[in-house]
Amino acid sequence: MNTVLAIDIGGTYTKIGVVTEEGEILISKVFNTRSKDSFDSFFQELVTEVNLLTSKLDQDCKILGIGVGAPNANSYTGNVENPPNLKWGKRIPLAKSIKDSFELPVFIANDANAAALGELKFGMAQGMRNFVVLTLGTGLGSGIIVNGDLLLGEHALAAEIGHVNVDPNGRQCNCGLQGCLEAYASVTGIKRTVFGLMAKMRVDSSLQGVSFDDLTGETITNAALKGDELALKAFDVTAAILGRKMADTVAHLDPEAFILTGGLSKAGEVLLKPVVASMEKNLFIAYKGKIKVLISEAPRESTILGPAALAFKNLKTLAIQT
Amino acid sequence: MNTVLAIDIGGTYTKIGVVTEEGEILISKVFNTRSKDSFDSFFQELVTEVNLLTSKLDQDCKILGIGVGAPNANSYTGNVENPPNLKWGKRIPLAKSIKDSFELPVFIANDANAAALGELKFGMAQGMRNFVVLTLGTGLGSGIIVNGDLLLGEHALAAEIGHVNVDPNGRQCNCGLQGCLEAYASVTGIKRTVFGLMAKMRVDSSLQGVSFDDLTGETITNAALKGDELALKAFDVTAAILGRKMADTVAHLDPEAFILTGGLSKAGEVLLKPVVASMEKNLFIAYKGKIKVLISEAPRESTILGPAALAFKNLKTLAIQT
Repeated sequence: MNTVLAIDIGGTYTKIGVVTEEGEILISKVFNTRSKDSFDSFFQELVTEVNLLTSKLDQDCKILGIGVGAPNANSYTGNVENPPNLKWGKRIPLAKSIKDSFELPVFIANDANAAALGELKFGMAQGMRNFVVLTLGTGLGSGIIVNGDLLLGEHALAAEIGHVNVDPNGRQCNCGLQGCLEAYASVTGIKRTVFGLMAKMRVDSSLQGVSFDDLTGETITNAALKGDELALKAFDVTAAILGRKMADTVAHLDPEAFILTGGLSKAGEVLLKPVVASMEKNLFIAYKGKIKVLISEAPRESTILGPAALAFKNLKTLAIQT
Repeated sequence: MNTVLAIDIGGTYTKIGVVTEEGEILISKVFNTRSKDSFDSFFQELVTEVNLLTSKLDQDCKILGIGVGAPNANSYTGNVENPPNLKWGKRIPLAKSIKDSFELPVFIANDANAAALGELKFGMAQGMRNFVVLTLGTGLGSGIIVNGDLLLGEHALAAEIGHVNVDPNGRQCNCGLQGCLEAYASVTGIKRTVFGLMAKMRVDSSLQGVSFDDLTGETITNAALKGDELALKAFDVTAAILGRKMADTVAHLDPEAFILTGGLSKAGEVLLKPVVASMEKNLFIAYKGKIKVLISEAPRESTILGPAALAFKNLKTLAIQT
């Protein structure tokens, strides 16, 4: 059976697995990325875990290549560049290191770009040719598919929709700019909105008993789903901003759909309804009523499907070229 | 000699010409679009003018196809849809009408999209694979090239960057929305800025002697080039907004360059310097210093080169397919 090894490196956890072309995860493992350690120590553990995992595979299982999704990974250079949440340094030759260790073709992409490929091959975007994935997690990641393929741009840096500007005098962003979308429409963003609303509103809310450090996206989502006024208001504020900026994205790309994923998307209709209303209100007339907004059905554990899709896609291109 | 017939339909003038693959305009003609007349009357004149023009061509000159650039032209359907500046009605089968009259392959695109193809084949973008053309005329048109080809999107409606939002409480736009970029960064936009600044500033300016109806982009540009304080301030305000929104475009597309064209771009450095400063200030760190901003060198009369490039490109694709 033909498979690929998929590696999804996150700021907190790294997931590895062996995946078939049908998207079946034959075997997988999660380990702590230990983001404060050096790249060398991470890489040693990665090699050990991969060897351990693949040693358990059936003999008829052939690994054709390796797909890697990582924050700030550059598909052209194979490097991870300035990852803000990993203490790895400026420029890590991740693709080359993996290739040297396993002697297999290695394909690498920014994590959100890999997620878009995962939705295209295995998820809700099967058969779509133009769509945008927004991962509403700690930050806001994005992946853009145009004409059935990943939009990489001139320097493989396309799709940083988390850093479009909402308000030039707005919130400070981790990236150094002011007013980035990610500072509003992400788990961290809605948390900041909750505390801003506490300053502004008179309301009884279960969230008032939780500290800034302790408040999670899950807590806010659960409160909203139970009808907590403050939490619902926070979703409305977040969705109004996100929907407005999604209308800007449509005015660039004219996609068939947006697919929302990540922690914040677990709120379902509580997020979706006001997002669609705000987007439609702000859409240029030619687009109105034409753009779908969907919530990803991919379970959280399936993030390795993105890197797996990346590997299958590039192996196919290689096969055509040679 | 192999040539194409190129047709550029504007709100005021329609230009037609016969163009070689090297971008030489062998023969051309301009006539009034008479935007208030019906499509039928326009089309009759178009056919007459084309026949007159082509009758003057040398016998060895072979027209292989026809490229058409028109406002709100849809490359997938071949129709012109709801053109706001033409009284043609909701949906005009322009490509089909032309094909039926001349019995040649006809290719059609939104005017700004055609302009991007013109820069790619004949202009400053030769050899580029990822760039964005912004036409700063009466409105703000845009064309996006990704991986060396035109970005059309799911409904052939991509690249309406004139209608991204600058300010939800901002200026009314012709399209019905509020705060669109086109209401600021276009000839009409800077004119509105000039009158807004007159209300706000105490200043002596030659522009104060001109009525709203009479003020042209050329007058504002000439005043700025002569050092008129009000005109210069108007360019600074316009450029700050345009540069900020161009940073958003970069966060989607990661282009190699922007190419600015249209009336406002004639101001040269007066526009370019503050645009670049504002864009750089607002760019996500990974893009800083990487994105060029250029002013098109294409003379105003050369707008038929866009439709010509469109025709040559699609004829080549047809030849490969068959």
